[in-house]
Amino acid sequence: MSIHSVRRSQNHLAWDKSIRPVVYAQSGDTIAFDCLDSSNGQITPASTASTLSSLVVAELDQVSGPVHIEGALPGDTLQVDVLEIETADWGWTGLIPGFGVLLDEFPTPALKIWELDKENGFAWFDREKGIKIPLRPFPGEMGVAPGKEGAFSTIPPYNTGGNLDTKYLHAGSTLYLPIEAEGALFSIGDGHAAQGDGGKCCALETPIHVKVRLTIRKDKAYTKTPHYTTTEAVSREDYYCTTGIDSDIKTAIRAAVRYMIDYLVAEHQLGRTEAYMLCGVAGDLKLHEVVDMPNYVVGMMIPKSIFTLA
Amino acid sequence: MSIHSVRRSQNHLAWDKSIRPVVYAQSGDTIAFDCLDSSNGQITPASTASTLSSLVVAELDQVSGPVHIEGALPGDTLQVDVLEIETADWGWTGLIPGFGVLLDEFPTPALKIWELDKENGFAWFDREKGIKIPLRPFPGEMGVAPGKEGAFSTIPPYNTGGNLDTKYLHAGSTLYLPIEAEGALFSIGDGHAAQGDGGKCCALETPIHVKVRLTIRKDKAYTKTPHYTTTEAVSREDYYCTTGIDSDIKTAIRAAVRYMIDYLVAEHQLGRTEAYMLCGVAGDLKLHEVVDMPNYVVGMMIPKSIFTLA
Repeated sequence: MSIHSVRRSQNHLAWDKSIRPVVYAQSGDTIAFDCLDSSNGQITPASTASTLSSLVVAELDQVSGPVHIEGALPGDTLQVDVLEIETADWGWTGLIPGFGVLLDEFPTPALKIWELDKENGFAWFDREKGIKIPLRPFPGEMGVAPGKEGAFSTIPPYNTGGNLDTKYLHAGSTLYLPIEAEGALFSIGDGHAAQGDGGKCCALETPIHVKVRLTIRKDKAYTKTPHYTTTEAVSREDYYCTTGIDSDIKTAIRAAVRYMIDYLVAEHQLGRTEAYMLCGVAGDLKLHEVVDMPNYVVGMMIPKSIFTLA
Repeated sequence: MSIHSVRRSQNHLAWDKSIRPVVYAQSGDTIAFDCLDSSNGQITPASTASTLSSLVVAELDQVSGPVHIEGALPGDTLQVDVLEIETADWGWTGLIPGFGVLLDEFPTPALKIWELDKENGFAWFDREKGIKIPLRPFPGEMGVAPGKEGAFSTIPPYNTGGNLDTKYLHAGSTLYLPIEAEGALFSIGDGHAAQGDGGKCCALETPIHVKVRLTIRKDKAYTKTPHYTTTEAVSREDYYCTTGIDSDIKTAIRAAVRYMIDYLVAEHQLGRTEAYMLCGVAGDLKLHEVVDMPNYVVGMMIPKSIFTLA
């Protein structure tokens, strides 16, 4: 079993099986990636909201790779063991016009630069209001090349993975991806230091170093979308939750987030933009009920432990 | 503060402010409800799948009440503290034609009668295959009467509550409901001994005795849908997860459930009907990603601890 390295410059902006691999590996090998943040290096600790106006959107959400695994064939499954993730000592959260579930209600760009206390595993969201967020890093993007010819944007997720934005894919988790192209052609990126379920607007974005082990599996033919195993190590967590209830699930999602913003503004003295960002990095959207038609129930849960003064 | 009782016969089949209250209470009073299961007593421990064919659907999902609280006015918030829940020693899970996220793929009625080991807090799903489910009881229905005139079915959830099917509303949780009718007119029912997030098909249904404390709150005017506080007391839980990825969130939900069924059939030797039922009682649907358009990511998570032989 060998260890390979992928440098920060070795990245690409589309899922496309014609992109030349940067590493040729064997099944069972470990790959160490040095990944820029999801702005592709356009945002730095010195950036301000005005940086967002000049952001080149076409360069966002690059992924590092691709890695070719010898013997990987369409119909096989790629097992990705996430071994280690290390964030930088800074990160950012932005409201980027055109993104997010309440994009029409938050048209003004906003940017927050975070300092990450890696040693103690948290970051202050607002020191004065006593709000701090535990660091639970994971890569937002992991995927393989689609079998179809062509270049597919790295922004939407696909059945072959990509922008899954799933906080459960932390170190210790294992992701299974359906292989559609010869060699699998795995790539990774979009480091997050923290994010709630549902990726409502923007995560706590950060550059990462991440190590994964890639193994071809011939015995999991039922894997047609990303599957994974994960561990929740929450000892005991108290939540405040709002809900959205509607026959249109998008409307229900938006209502649940909007009502959490109203709650945070009323009870924790946050501005609406700060409250919306906090939903993105610390709140979990949950599908409570999808059976009792015509209405869905979507829950938006905020852990009370982030409010250290309350 | 007084304690009031509501008997099992004191129930109704619609949210309707013209229904005569069965109890007149003061803010801060405790109410003890004796609730039939959600079949309104039509299913018993002796029932079989053929019972489902003769089920009177119009009598399902009755709720016990209503309780009138003196001084509750439209615009106030009703605080519902869930104090205690006790299940019966049996329960049922049914695939009822016309219900469930995969209703077209499971057209044949199926019924499972469960024995609940209340002392040890679990129920065997399949003793031979070593699959057991922890009992985490909660009322599927809690709500108040809508302000609009008329009778509204108790099957869909509304902004005033009702069929929320939210497993986080267990004993120890507090629910806040926006009051729209004078007196609030609170009702409760639909006992569940266990259910995953998202209520995919049917829960582990059971009769319950439940005690709640009802308090009028004049200081939570931002409560426009059900809000709640809850505690997750999971020490450490390992999961296997499938996902559904699509631009239509309903298609994504259906795919996530369908792929979990495929996994359970392949790896745990379950029949498709049993696998679907297991998704309903033990699996959690999660909104992983709702931002990176045009595609959503929905996760379906099954805790590994229910498989006691693996």
